[in-house]
Amino acid sequence: MSFVNLDFARVDTDRQRRCGFPEVIFGAGKTPEEVAAIAGVLIERHGLLLATRVKSEHYAAVKAQFPDAEWHARAGCITVERRPLGRSEGLVGVLCAGTSDLPVADEAAVTLEIFGNTVMRISDVGVAGIHRLLAVQGELDKCSVLIVVAGMEGALPSAVAGLTSKPVIAVPTSVGYGANFGGLAALLGMLNSCGSGVTVVNIDNGFGAAYAAAQINLLISQKQTPS
Amino acid sequence: MSFVNLDFARVDTDRQRRCGFPEVIFGAGKTPEEVAAIAGVLIERHGLLLATRVKSEHYAAVKAQFPDAEWHARAGCITVERRPLGRSEGLVGVLCAGTSDLPVADEAAVTLEIFGNTVMRISDVGVAGIHRLLAVQGELDKCSVLIVVAGMEGALPSAVAGLTSKPVIAVPTSVGYGANFGGLAALLGMLNSCGSGVTVVNIDNGFGAAYAAAQINLLISQKQTPS
Amino acid sequence: MSFVNLDFARVDTDRQRRCGFPEVIFGAGKTPEEVAAIAGVLIERHGLLLATRVKSEHYAAVKAQFPDAEWHARAGCITVERRPLGRSEGLVGVLCAGTSDLPVADEAAVTLEIFGNTVMRISDVGVAGIHRLLAVQGELDKCSVLIVVAGMEGALPSAVAGLTSKPVIAVPTSVGYGANFGGLAALLGMLNSCGSGVTVVNIDNGFGAAYAAAQINLLISQKQTPS
Amino acid sequence: MSFVNLDFARVDTDRQRRCGFPEVIFGAGKTPEEVAAIAGVLIERHGLLLATRVKSEHYAAVKAQFPDAEWHARAGCITVERRPLGRSEGLVGVLCAGTSDLPVADEAAVTLEIFGNTVMRISDVGVAGIHRLLAVQGELDKCSVLIVVAGMEGALPSAVAGLTSKPVIAVPTSVGYGANFGGLAALLGMLNSCGSGVTVVNIDNGFGAAYAAAQINLLISQKQTPS
Amino acid sequence: MSFVNLDFARVDTDRQRRCGFPEVIFGAGKTPEEVAAIAGVLIERHGLLLATRVKSEHYAAVKAQFPDAEWHARAGCITVERRPLGRSEGLVGVLCAGTSDLPVADEAAVTLEIFGNTVMRISDVGVAGIHRLLAVQGELDKCSVLIVVAGMEGALPSAVAGLTSKPVIAVPTSVGYGANFGGLAALLGMLNSCGSGVTVVNIDNGFGAAYAAAQINLLISQKQTPS
Amino acid sequence: MSFVNLDFARVDTDRQRRCGFPEVIFGAGKTPEEVAAIAGVLIERHGLLLATRVKSEHYAAVKAQFPDAEWHARAGCITVERRPLGRSEGLVGVLCAGTSDLPVADEAAVTLEIFGNTVMRISDVGVAGIHRLLAVQGELDKCSVLIVVAGMEGALPSAVAGLTSKPVIAVPTSVGYGANFGGLAALLGMLNSCGSGVTVVNIDNGFGAAYAAAQINLLISQKQTPS
Amino acid sequence: MSFVNLDFARVDTDRQRRCGFPEVIFGAGKTPEEVAAIAGVLIERHGLLLATRVKSEHYAAVKAQFPDAEWHARAGCITVERRPLGRSEGLVGVLCAGTSDLPVADEAAVTLEIFGNTVMRISDVGVAGIHRLLAVQGELDKCSVLIVVAGMEGALPSAVAGLTSKPVIAVPTSVGYGANFGGLAALLGMLNSCGSGVTVVNIDNGFGAAYAAAQINLLISQKQTPS
Amino acid sequence: MSFVNLDFARVDTDRQRRCGFPEVIFGAGKTPEEVAAIAGVLIERHGLLLATRVKSEHYAAVKAQFPDAEWHARAGCITVERRPLGRSEGLVGVLCAGTSDLPVADEAAVTLEIFGNTVMRISDVGVAGIHRLLAVQGELDKCSVLIVVAGMEGALPSAVAGLTSKPVIAVPTSVGYGANFGGLAALLGMLNSCGSGVTVVNIDNGFGAAYAAAQINLLISQKQTPS
Repeated sequence: MSFVNLDFARVDTDRQRRCGFPEVIFGAGKTPEEVAAIAGVLIERHGLLLATRVKSEHYAAVKAQFPDAEWHARAGCITVERRPLGRSEGLVGVLCAGTSDLPVADEAAVTLEIFGNTVMRISDVGVAGIHRLLAVQGELDKCSVLIVVAGMEGALPSAVAGLTSKPVIAVPTSVGYGANFGGLAALLGMLNSCGSGVTVVNIDNGFGAAYAAAQINLLISQKQTPS
Repeated sequence: MSFVNLDFARVDTDRQRRCGFPEVIFGAGKTPEEVAAIAGVLIERHGLLLATRVKSEHYAAVKAQFPDAEWHARAGCITVERRPLGRSEGLVGVLCAGTSDLPVADEAAVTLEIFGNTVMRISDVGVAGIHRLLAVQGELDKCSVLIVVAGMEGALPSAVAGLTSKPVIAVPTSVGYGANFGGLAALLGMLNSCGSGVTVVNIDNGFGAAYAAAQINLLISQKQTPS
Repeated sequence: MSFVNLDFARVDTDRQRRCGFPEVIFGAGKTPEEVAAIAGVLIERHGLLLATRVKSEHYAAVKAQFPDAEWHARAGCITVERRPLGRSEGLVGVLCAGTSDLPVADEAAVTLEIFGNTVMRISDVGVAGIHRLLAVQGELDKCSVLIVVAGMEGALPSAVAGLTSKPVIAVPTSVGYGANFGGLAALLGMLNSCGSGVTVVNIDNGFGAAYAAAQINLLISQKQTPS
Repeated sequence: MSFVNLDFARVDTDRQRRCGFPEVIFGAGKTPEEVAAIAGVLIERHGLLLATRVKSEHYAAVKAQFPDAEWHARAGCITVERRPLGRSEGLVGVLCAGTSDLPVADEAAVTLEIFGNTVMRISDVGVAGIHRLLAVQGELDKCSVLIVVAGMEGALPSAVAGLTSKPVIAVPTSVGYGANFGGLAALLGMLNSCGSGVTVVNIDNGFGAAYAAAQINLLISQKQTPS
Repeated sequence: MSFVNLDFARVDTDRQRRCGFPEVIFGAGKTPEEVAAIAGVLIERHGLLLATRVKSEHYAAVKAQFPDAEWHARAGCITVERRPLGRSEGLVGVLCAGTSDLPVADEAAVTLEIFGNTVMRISDVGVAGIHRLLAVQGELDKCSVLIVVAGMEGALPSAVAGLTSKPVIAVPTSVGYGANFGGLAALLGMLNSCGSGVTVVNIDNGFGAAYAAAQINLLISQKQTPS
Repeated sequence: MSFVNLDFARVDTDRQRRCGFPEVIFGAGKTPEEVAAIAGVLIERHGLLLATRVKSEHYAAVKAQFPDAEWHARAGCITVERRPLGRSEGLVGVLCAGTSDLPVADEAAVTLEIFGNTVMRISDVGVAGIHRLLAVQGELDKCSVLIVVAGMEGALPSAVAGLTSKPVIAVPTSVGYGANFGGLAALLGMLNSCGSGVTVVNIDNGFGAAYAAAQINLLISQKQTPS
Repeated sequence: MSFVNLDFARVDTDRQRRCGFPEVIFGAGKTPEEVAAIAGVLIERHGLLLATRVKSEHYAAVKAQFPDAEWHARAGCITVERRPLGRSEGLVGVLCAGTSDLPVADEAAVTLEIFGNTVMRISDVGVAGIHRLLAVQGELDKCSVLIVVAGMEGALPSAVAGLTSKPVIAVPTSVGYGANFGGLAALLGMLNSCGSGVTVVNIDNGFGAAYAAAQINLLISQKQTPS
Repeated sequence: MSFVNLDFARVDTDRQRRCGFPEVIFGAGKTPEEVAAIAGVLIERHGLLLATRVKSEHYAAVKAQFPDAEWHARAGCITVERRPLGRSEGLVGVLCAGTSDLPVADEAAVTLEIFGNTVMRISDVGVAGIHRLLAVQGELDKCSVLIVVAGMEGALPSAVAGLTSKPVIAVPTSVGYGANFGGLAALLGMLNSCGSGVTVVNIDNGFGAAYAAAQINLLISQKQTPS
């Protein structure tokens, strides 16, 4: 059977086969009990758990049953890693424009790591001091994919895309105020980037960017292994 | 009397005294006859005319009465300059991110020139090729004020503001498509700029940016003369 | 010198070195003369031209100077290919939900091809008849990357992402009416996809999706060659 | 007299005759005392109460006067059922895309049940794992109407509509974050559904969908009885 | 095979079996040739054609091949009816608030008729003259379903829903100006209707409302036949 | 019978009795023939016609049947006045901020005049030259009601409301560009006016403002006559 | 001197002369101390105080200095009435669509009363039970002005306007949820009303509607007295 | 080295050289510890600190290490001023429309002062009592730049711009409710100002306006010194 029916949830136990990675729990709007019950199915099948958008009360409920659960406070994530996934080739750069964007960058990093990727963090390189970005230009070339997290006007991905041939996945954040409209300004900025090839995920969606980057790294690794 | 009542318009002949520059005709929504009639009052009083947002039929109507009227096609402006305003000190830089932004940059330049300012044009220096901007960094320092015109994500003002101590007036343009929503993306980007001190005018409002820059130059010049 | 200054444009002749592909002309808002002049620089340097968002009058101006220019009517693109780029490994799937989405899918395909990629087209597989998508599931697995073009509610990328481990780049189109608000409905749908790892480009931006896919294919190919 | 004037409320005691079902209390913005007073009129006239969008303090006030009042916590509803309405023919399917959508699905189910309908619940069948939906396709055929609840991109109704000839009533939920804009993404997705015949209610409006489904079932039952 | 692959389109020839009605051509964004080719498949398989959102040039292309094609100018629809569908029981009321809403009401009526339904038209009964609606209250009771078409503030469905127990499907139109924002005002009005059980389709989507009504009538008729 | 059923329209011949003024034709979206037919009913019953939002082809159709029909080109209105309504007491001031707002002010003035009101026009008194408004302050006091028409930021009603005790009805216009979003900026400005008692009508809705002003004048006149 | 400068506020003591009523304190965003200090000036000059948008802590601060201050909890208003304004002629009807709209209707009523008007309250007459409105039609005719308060789709003003010749001032409320977008749906509905002559104030702005109604009543009364 | 890498932040210690003023801490979204650490770097390098958008807990953390830190409660700012910047010439006027706008005006004033500017405060001069503004017209002429802070409809900058030749920097505030949409109404009003030369910053962005004003004053002062 390709899913487990908990009545309130049908846990998709076939996802790793189809999509490359096991199902992940989106915690927002779920009770601690619901998260813990779904976690039970996933840990049993895959020996692996990632729950995002969770609070400390969710962590408490999971921890009670799975004492090896880890809590990533700033990222708002829970992980359990009993049977680690294979390591992908390719370094993923996770850049952020400002210190206030770190929680979103953390969600990306936690996701990348449990999905078997190596992460290089580069923080606070916003375009208002472009020399800080130029100073790390050499590092960009070492990565296979770049996740670029920025709030306010979201200009960093455009600048990064102009400096590299690597895929740039842009994550707008809700950092800012007033006419940022909860991240809309950064989102629109990234969608309209003059830097060619920038692709975009939802506001504050560090997880989604990491997932896409992990898929790209998987592709590289799969190509490598057989050939 | 501080205005001339044409019934359909009350031409503010006192504006130069109060605000530093004579009234300017906003042509959109006015008939050629209306524009020509208001132009008549302004040319008589000030020996100077600037009409913005006009079409060639407006120009024809004005030209018929004032053969020295000049037509600025890409800017959509008419000028008559019989009694030039005094020259201000201070060079105004008019930068634009891409070739498609030129009509808006032209509206700014035409306005600046008739208001007595010297203009330096720097075109097509968008952030996707940041080396093009860095190559003109020395030019930026020669200006007293910088008008930065950009469409799409509108990131150029942020980058410029990080390179200079000069006031940056940002003009979002409607260049782009889809989720640029007629210039909204660039507008929001500029309002949320991480570059400190960037101020913003309406979408495609090259005139407004030029007016503000001319006021700043006037300030410099006035300070200079008496002291 | 890393760019050619045409005054109205600074052509970025260094982009291929930095970003993997030569500069591309965004034709909207440029005159035929401007497009032809920039095309001249690019063809001379790279032996290659891609101009997007152009009309037949732009094509006429380019054709007059470069008789080997090709016109892609439905895509709104001009290409010249004198010194083809190297072929990348990896097949790119270009899916679209409905017949009305074909112009956007075409822009993606033209871009992919001139950038050295092999394309597999799969059209009219929207979710209202999900059996049409399931019938091509085997084809999806042969691709390295999938570009999924859809208007209306933009649900196709979610369904595709649930069937494959390959990166899915979603392109919302302005196809639809009323509360689609020019593609906004599809854009928001794709940004909020429950299918993990979907990344999104601007509305109708087939070019951007193709560029990102080409970058991923380049990555695969580069990894291959040296190892 | 066709309504009871409580001064702060005119309770429409004629609604069952006109519209098929007694008036329902919309609790948001009403005090516990107001809800209890209106409840008194409705219970007296109809022997039946449904109050939606209420909190536990409203329940306490109603319970104090009507000890047989029932509290549906996740749905945020109070019911009293002294003189049950007749049972309608026709099974109503209440599907939801994810576990986080359950409160809205519950509001629909509570409403359907007190209005005399039989409900079949099918939860967590979102399109990212389409096999979960295909696995219950047989169940869909047993229903007369389908209520489909989904947040995020709201794609589930399109997929369901493509699998069945039964009326599909779509309920967007506010589940998600960022560019879901409080349910707007799901709402627009459903309004633009490529699945023919999907009708939509307000965001999180489980009650409204249930009311419409109950009207359809009433129609079937009325047709049946006489013939 | 459950679809016919025309390369640019995969015609879903299985839809009638699954969904009750054959596939319908959404003409917007398709060329006349594309519409005619898809029409050919549908007429051959089903002996029936409905194309919506088409212009007279589409009609010309279809007419050239199928001389019995009919043109519904105000509705913007083409029909061919060689093997009529069975007649459903149940009268469908199509109301509209004003004369300017007639094209949308026509699209609904054409759809209903080719899908085997009997239609009663009631036009220009907007709430500003509520006595016009009350004068037809008796007619409402004769219908099984009511389609209510309105622009501007879209208040008519609320008033109708308060007078009847029949399902009300509301169609907002883009009729109006200024802050109607192309039908958004009417759409929001209908989604927030205080009249219980109102369901809503996209702006100007007469087809969608008719499809849903036809599904409800099919349900009545199917129940009838076997029992 | 309180309405005349033309099938495509139910002309509300009872409106004058209920609402004080005969029905008015909203021409947008109606054919010339439809407008002429409704005009026929209204002229016969009331000896009076006002049609708004009409084009010259509508005028031609009406003129053909009613040679005394008058065409108000800038206002986009047709009038026939065979049996004039009684004159109301009270002068209505119609102010506008700029020359480009005149078409909307004209629609208001035409409406006011056919409804029996005396109008005082004051044009081009926008707040950027506040002395022009202060110069007519004495005129404001002579009016019973003030209609204030403005585009761009729509600040004029706030300034007027601070100078007078008379009701101010504000009409936002779509004059402007960019972030005026078709009149939205002026509309929001007027709704948020710091000037107490400003009420607002739809964008460009000169007719609506005039109707409300005429109602107020009717009130004054009715009070006067009997007492 | 026409204002009192408290440094943090310039109290406009001339407003009654210019605008008919003394200045009113808008409490939101002001500290209790600021409100009390401004109240002191107004009570001294006018013997009258109205403060809106205040909380109980503001009331405590005012009460401490002015023991005769009255607290209107549901309206969120403070009043002091030592030297009452003269009574206006004309009854003001304050209607609301639902019980949840009462706080806004209360703000209107408190304002009307301290400004010397007599108020008739009619609550819970929303269009979903139109017979409740028709039952009070006779009452409407007794009023000089009608304030109509409604949330959700805001349809009540349209229905009221169709039944009366009196000016209708519509107040949208934020009552509702989801796609009501904090009152936007009701606001747009009222601005697009098919009922002629409806004017609109800001969302939840009971004060503004009352102020406009009081101005109209003042007009009636002033006309009466002299003649 | 032109920045200090704290890992979570790269403090731009080169900014004063490039941009005229040292880096400022944007406190929102940063922890107290992060703010204190960055403050440490800035105080050491520049002997000067400005942190905006901070809360009292941030102040506590900074105060613990730098006992001379000052807390500006209403402005939400922390300052340390050990090595004051040179005083600029030119007086900056900070006007606000109402008392509720004071926190934003305070943020501007605190910024101006620490950047070496002299500030003149003028509060509560909104356009509803235009005589209050006219009373200070003489003061406006003494300033080199004017910062104009206003919420609600944001009309004050337009009126000020019409009275002076000095640059006007407009700051929209979120003061208001309902259709002010968190400051959007004031923002749009200012962007569409009919007063020429008004430039605009983000909603509630007193800091940004002050920064731009300080740049202009710097310009004046620099010009002065050498000549």
